[in-house]
Amino acid sequence: MNEILESLHRRKSVRVFTDQPVGEAEKRAILEAAVQAPTAGNQQLYTILDITDQSIKDTLAETCDHQPFIAKAPVVLVFCADCRKWFDAYVEAGCSPRRPGPGDLMLAVEDAAIAAQNAVTAADSLGLGSCYIGDIMEQHEAHRELLHLPPWVFPAVMLVLGYPTQQQKDRPKPERAAMEHVVHSNTYRRMDGEELRRIFDGRTGGEEFCSWMQAFHRRKYDSGFAREMNRSVQAYLRDLEEEEPV
Amino acid sequence: MNEILESLHRRKSVRVFTDQPVGEAEKRAILEAAVQAPTAGNQQLYTILDITDQSIKDTLAETCDHQPFIAKAPVVLVFCADCRKWFDAYVEAGCSPRRPGPGDLMLAVEDAAIAAQNAVTAADSLGLGSCYIGDIMEQHEAHRELLHLPPWVFPAVMLVLGYPTQQQKDRPKPERAAMEHVVHSNTYRRMDGEELRRIFDGRTGGEEFCSWMQAFHRRKYDSGFAREMNRSVQAYLRDLEEEEPV
Repeated sequence: MNEILESLHRRKSVRVFTDQPVGEAEKRAILEAAVQAPTAGNQQLYTILDITDQSIKDTLAETCDHQPFIAKAPVVLVFCADCRKWFDAYVEAGCSPRRPGPGDLMLAVEDAAIAAQNAVTAADSLGLGSCYIGDIMEQHEAHRELLHLPPWVFPAVMLVLGYPTQQQKDRPKPERAAMEHVVHSNTYRRMDGEELRRIFDGRTGGEEFCSWMQAFHRRKYDSGFAREMNRSVQAYLRDLEEEEPV
Repeated sequence: MNEILESLHRRKSVRVFTDQPVGEAEKRAILEAAVQAPTAGNQQLYTILDITDQSIKDTLAETCDHQPFIAKAPVVLVFCADCRKWFDAYVEAGCSPRRPGPGDLMLAVEDAAIAAQNAVTAADSLGLGSCYIGDIMEQHEAHRELLHLPPWVFPAVMLVLGYPTQQQKDRPKPERAAMEHVVHSNTYRRMDGEELRRIFDGRTGGEEFCSWMQAFHRRKYDSGFAREMNRSVQAYLRDLEEEEPV
């Protein structure tokens, strides 16, 4: 396995950081790797917010499902799917652009996530740990105000970065599902009950499938934050239909 | 710059491949790097379709905005945002899950794009070129039938991979926008006309901003494929509201 493959295998989420600050050169290297990522038609359909203001970090630690470690992260980056800047550039050039739609938003979300994953890989190569915070998609009203997001700018992913503590370095990476369940040949194969159970063999800490899955369902899919994420994303989608274009 | 940063900077899209086949070991290494990517709550909210059937590749070359190079790609991978498999697993465990919503879909799309970007980085480390095909989000009806996608499974990104021809190796990577326009400090700064024009300084091949941008607008944003992408993604979103849960 070459060094790059090893790094992609090794990388795991880090949520506890040492006090060591992240230098400007390191942050710059991470951001430069992010913007070199593949992007649809070389459009870079995203804008990255570099959050250095402690009061904004403190608020995000609350609004992103009450996760105090966000406030303590040396680097906090919000990758926004940006359907605004190209619209504005088209208007500046004298075009009469249509309003953006859900396809434009989805393409921009993918651009943002792809750039963020380059940032993660770059950070790892510099000894920095990272964690994605999907909760940035929640709290549409609060985040629009806090981050001054105009309509058609959607905070797709947040990354927190810093140097990992020894405990975080030692923590084992959670095991992924076996490849056969994740990679299907040619067409989608809807998995039956027997296969769905098999995915979790040896991954429930010895607990029986049903009780493990029921607890997971309560904690994740049926949680307040998941319901809030759906409400909030729906509100962003509604902006595409309802906001005045200029 | 370390080897990993260099690779992230170097990587550019490749659309023409040599006849050299991609070995099973290389494809496996790329897929294994993909599934090691960060994923929300270790859920791997995606399913990867490994398209080896030439007739499916031929169809995708047509349905994905008529791009014949897709049919000639040695490896074609479709990363589907999968809101179906967890729903089915919850039902198997005796839960009564809510139907998925747009927040669940968005989180799954991000998971899929993040995994795809690991595949891109892994491929580059093995000397393979890659290109994202966002057009896989188009043609909702045709792709659901072709790939046997049940409701709540959304083909988010497609990757084509193979060994680059010399001409592709020699092609310069298109320049990205200057960092100041892409990375904003703390809050979103809506760019004025002067700054929007500045982004494209030196990037229009000597053409004047307005005419360059008008042509780009016609070719991209106002194109048939962009309108089709919006229609098609809207249809996938409608499934979340209308499809019967089981």
